Amino acid sequence: MQQTLKSILVLGAGSFGSCLADHLGDSEHHVYLWSRSKEFCDHFNQQHRCIHQLTDHQFSTHITAVGPEFPDRALVEKIDILLFAIPTEGVRSNLVALKPVLNFDRLPLLIFVNKGIEISTQCITMEIIADELGPEVAKVTTFLSGPSFAKEIVRRQPTSVSIASLTPERAQQAAEVFHQPWFRCDDPIGVELAGAMKNVYAIVAGAADGLGFENNTRASLITRALSEMTRVGKAYGANPLTYLGLAGVGDLILTCSSPLSRNYTVGKRLAAGEKIEDIVKSLGSVAEGVATSKALKSVIDDLKLDLPIANSVYEVLYEGKDVKERAQFLMSLPSVPELELPEDELSEPVRRLRARLGIE
Amino acid sequence: MQQTLKSILVLGAGSFGSCLADHLGDSEHHVYLWSRSKEFCDHFNQQHRCIHQLTDHQFSTHITAVGPEFPDRALVEKIDILLFAIPTEGVRSNLVALKPVLNFDRLPLLIFVNKGIEISTQCITMEIIADELGPEVAKVTTFLSGPSFAKEIVRRQPTSVSIASLTPERAQQAAEVFHQPWFRCDDPIGVELAGAMKNVYAIVAGAADGLGFENNTRASLITRALSEMTRVGKAYGANPLTYLGLAGVGDLILTCSSPLSRNYTVGKRLAAGEKIEDIVKSLGSVAEGVATSKALKSVIDDLKLDLPIANSVYEVLYEGKDVKERAQFLMSLPSVPELELPEDELSEPVRRLRARLGIE
Repeated sequence: MQQTLKSILVLGAGSFGSCLADHLGDSEHHVYLWSRSKEFCDHFNQQHRCIHQLTDHQFSTHITAVGPEFPDRALVEKIDILLFAIPTEGVRSNLVALKPVLNFDRLPLLIFVNKGIEISTQCITMEIIADELGPEVAKVTTFLSGPSFAKEIVRRQPTSVSIASLTPERAQQAAEVFHQPWFRCDDPIGVELAGAMKNVYAIVAGAADGLGFENNTRASLITRALSEMTRVGKAYGANPLTYLGLAGVGDLILTCSSPLSRNYTVGKRLAAGEKIEDIVKSLGSVAEGVATSKALKSVIDDLKLDLPIANSVYEVLYEGKDVKERAQFLMSLPSVPELELPEDELSEPVRRLRARLGIE
Repeated sequence: MQQTLKSILVLGAGSFGSCLADHLGDSEHHVYLWSRSKEFCDHFNQQHRCIHQLTDHQFSTHITAVGPEFPDRALVEKIDILLFAIPTEGVRSNLVALKPVLNFDRLPLLIFVNKGIEISTQCITMEIIADELGPEVAKVTTFLSGPSFAKEIVRRQPTSVSIASLTPERAQQAAEVFHQPWFRCDDPIGVELAGAMKNVYAIVAGAADGLGFENNTRASLITRALSEMTRVGKAYGANPLTYLGLAGVGDLILTCSSPLSRNYTVGKRLAAGEKIEDIVKSLGSVAEGVATSKALKSVIDDLKLDLPIANSVYEVLYEGKDVKERAQFLMSLPSVPELELPEDELSEPVRRLRARLGIE
């Protein structure tokens, strides 16, 4: 496929933002990578290397670091693709900064890669976008999710992800930009919720491994976690089959199977008896599952869903319950039909989301 | 739950049959374990140990090995539960042996744990049962499937599986016998097909690991394999959501993730350049995925489904294609919608199945 060269601005120079910038730089697009750290920008533009993560990797020379000020209207006006790689808790404030410099009449292709639920509002990212930039922008935004460790993407390991949007042509455009056999999907709500929740379940997988449970137990936990994810998705009107895809089971398998996952590491260290405060302090980077567990607890209470695994993570992280005791509890749950999906009735979180997006 | 003690006959004394016998022996049921090897029976009854597999494990004294002759009417008449743990290619001949000694007026609870498709007929096990014992028996049979390595079950690692039947009360009874928080399911056809197909995909996972692909690639392959499984299931009238469960994704994750899986080992050794004939000879026990790949190829051709991963396994195993070349091919497939399920129209394999079961 013939590709036109694009101007791309990546907001957020963490592992994932940097690795996607690198991937796009390969195709000779003009890539700007925004960091709020002057030190990062200077170092990157001299050495084509990051400071804190992926430090072994030599980045494409098609990437220019910009910052530390938020990009101005002159830069944003010429951008074709705006890629948000900022943790969920920072999305709203950055959209507030973006709004005055964004040309709404010539909207770039918007791609979001964060995975989480905003704690104070229980908003998924699409709702934050609708709040700050309006529902019409939220409806054309695309969301990228799937099994994709940054460390492996920069080593050019074959990687497939899902790109979801309420506007299918936008998802297709995003898939083409990345120039990979990536997948498009029309269920951004299902994809977003899956991405957020898998980080919580990765903590459980790490804890199970840390407690000495083996393959049978791990596979069964991951499967039961997937069933909890699917039930939340269904309650939000998502397609249960989204959970069979890359953003669902694909990303869940990855995050639950490897010490490369920060959330998995949190669980493993909890099982070894460390306190969550100490783990969070020493991690160095954000384990999104810890924050998401708190937001998720409010969501599932509002949805009136009984999700024993998600609840157990919350109890261990925020109520000081013992990780071994909670594991025993999860193992002792009685025999039930495997996947009972909630009825199609509008719960409070779904009413909120629909109101934000202006959906009847 | 108060349990009455049952008489149980396990047909087949391989790893999985022995481990389930042991599990049931724990609950003080009377368990008979049939082997066609006199050496096995004598050794087991003296030492309460197996000869060829799980040799470290001391088995329950509630188990009596019987054989080498096929169990007679006197034994079969007093049996409450008949558990078939025989590879798919041996199921038909053993049902032929069972038929004259089975009391059809007081049918024991029938549980099948094999996972495969009969090569010469492309029958799933439920069809073989319908052929040999009649459709009414097939309809009350239960099928056990899910992430369950025998080595971990005998070490009492918490294990959850799915028990499926067209007769839900039978599935419930089977779940209670095993006295575990196991899951019941009303989609035995989906469960059977999932169990058979995951062995084929485990070969791919082993090959990908052997070729040096990492976590992103493995997670994406497993997810795309799951999508192929779901498409075959849907074509057979199975519920796509079955593939989100223990017999679907649960078992697939397990089989694709561990060197304990024989099928995974086959793939890994293929990637190292060994010939399939040499691998099969030296394995010592059956890797069901190798036979199932052949049966599956006929099924998917009859279903007119394009399943690139399943086809690639067949081409490597039976047409001498190069494993590296096929891996490159799979990685290069174009961007597509992620899960396109076939329309509800009756294909040839499904007509055959319905005719066998007497379903309109």
